[in-house]
Amino acid sequence: MTKPAILNRLSLNQITTEQWNLKEAVRGCEEAEIGQIALWRHKVEETGLQASRNMIRDAGLHVSSLCRGGMFPASTAAEREQRLDDNRRAVEEAAELGTDTLVLVCGPGPDRDIETARKHVEEGIAKLVPFALSYGIKLGIEPLHPMYAADRSVISTLNQANTIAEQFRPEEVGVIVDVFHVWWDPELYRQIERATGRVLGFHVSDWVIPVPDMFKGRGMMGDGVIEINRIRHAVEAAGYYGPIEVEIINQAIWDRPGEEVLEEIKASFVKHV
Amino acid sequence: MTKPAILNRLSLNQITTEQWNLKEAVRGCEEAEIGQIALWRHKVEETGLQASRNMIRDAGLHVSSLCRGGMFPASTAAEREQRLDDNRRAVEEAAELGTDTLVLVCGPGPDRDIETARKHVEEGIAKLVPFALSYGIKLGIEPLHPMYAADRSVISTLNQANTIAEQFRPEEVGVIVDVFHVWWDPELYRQIERATGRVLGFHVSDWVIPVPDMFKGRGMMGDGVIEINRIRHAVEAAGYYGPIEVEIINQAIWDRPGEEVLEEIKASFVKHV
Repeated sequence: MTKPAILNRLSLNQITTEQWNLKEAVRGCEEAEIGQIALWRHKVEETGLQASRNMIRDAGLHVSSLCRGGMFPASTAAEREQRLDDNRRAVEEAAELGTDTLVLVCGPGPDRDIETARKHVEEGIAKLVPFALSYGIKLGIEPLHPMYAADRSVISTLNQANTIAEQFRPEEVGVIVDVFHVWWDPELYRQIERATGRVLGFHVSDWVIPVPDMFKGRGMMGDGVIEINRIRHAVEAAGYYGPIEVEIINQAIWDRPGEEVLEEIKASFVKHV
Repeated sequence: MTKPAILNRLSLNQITTEQWNLKEAVRGCEEAEIGQIALWRHKVEETGLQASRNMIRDAGLHVSSLCRGGMFPASTAAEREQRLDDNRRAVEEAAELGTDTLVLVCGPGPDRDIETARKHVEEGIAKLVPFALSYGIKLGIEPLHPMYAADRSVISTLNQANTIAEQFRPEEVGVIVDVFHVWWDPELYRQIERATGRVLGFHVSDWVIPVPDMFKGRGMMGDGVIEINRIRHAVEAAGYYGPIEVEIINQAIWDRPGEEVLEEIKASFVKHV
């Protein structure tokens, strides 16, 4: 059987196979003929940066992105500077690992003042941009679902992400469209269109009913309510034809053999993405 | 000790004391010197409409709203007409119970097509308005948090609610501002200002970290991250000085004696609302 062309765009976001270390994930991709992977820093750290880079290079895998920089807001200037240091390390790691995109999960506010936290995000990104540019790394602002506004990201909509990104050049800052986070947004298609030329990544999973867990409760594509295919076409109309990361954070999936999960992902991807 | 004036605006939203039937809730309000209550239809049905009305009248309680109408989207025209029938009954009940406000929880879509579901909401409201007006009942569109977009309401933002409400006169349709649902919204204060003259209700609780349950996980005012007092002042600047409903959907609170919960609510209300 001929391999469906869309599968060439599939990138395994490593958190989907949290049960695997990097070595296992690389081998899993090879065996499933998945040519791209998105890395998470805690997995890279576990394996070691050089060893990770070597494994990925030897396997001929393309790294679609590194997750994550961000977490900019903090109570004191000193803490914010520490966060920025960590972001600089993330940029260096991204470059070493051979990707051009660092995903930003912008962080929650340290207290009840969400507006100030949002300013900290803008300031943090502005400070990080020249450093990232010097490494050829683009910063991809990923709005997270509003249900994570208190503990993960005060950037909740593509509107916000676009407004920040537009303060920079497209080779500096763009946005990440993750269907799980943005599917509900009445402005979704308008904001995707607005992001034309700035979409740096497209992530898929699904929103199932009921959501089994606020963090580890994402569904397999096709099992939920998200119009994934429609959103993909909108993202393509905005000029993005790059890797499509499958990012399913789900305990039940982590409890299964990774090889089996990858086969299911490929089937769902062809059918629903 | 003098009773703080703000307590005169406290209305007990009945779902906060789900452990109580209506009779117990009425007695609880009397004993706690809470002069207002917001009713839920399942509680009224349990007690009976006439009996409920009599109890409330005898206790001299003001009914701030009835929850809920809505649930407009459905796959077939026949089903949507059934939903509308149920909304008409809700209007009649609201009038009988002596409130002028029916809260609308607009409903999820029946399938993946969220845009069509949103059209069903607009159509349903348009059909309901003349009937509601003839009973002197205003329809309050309550945007629910985007995490409920798949199973409770495709109206997720004040922007959406305002856009629908503005198609009608202020005595016909307005919006309900519930801090739990809207606190994260980058457009919050702009949209509250836009709702000037159309705010029909203000609901308080808090967003705690972590949220213990997606539905039954709201916090007591002051225990979470929401800038409740700031939002109250914005709602007042938009002309709303009516009842402030305490609507805390929380299993742990339902497991406690209602009298104790009411005392805690009063203290938190004075301090944080």
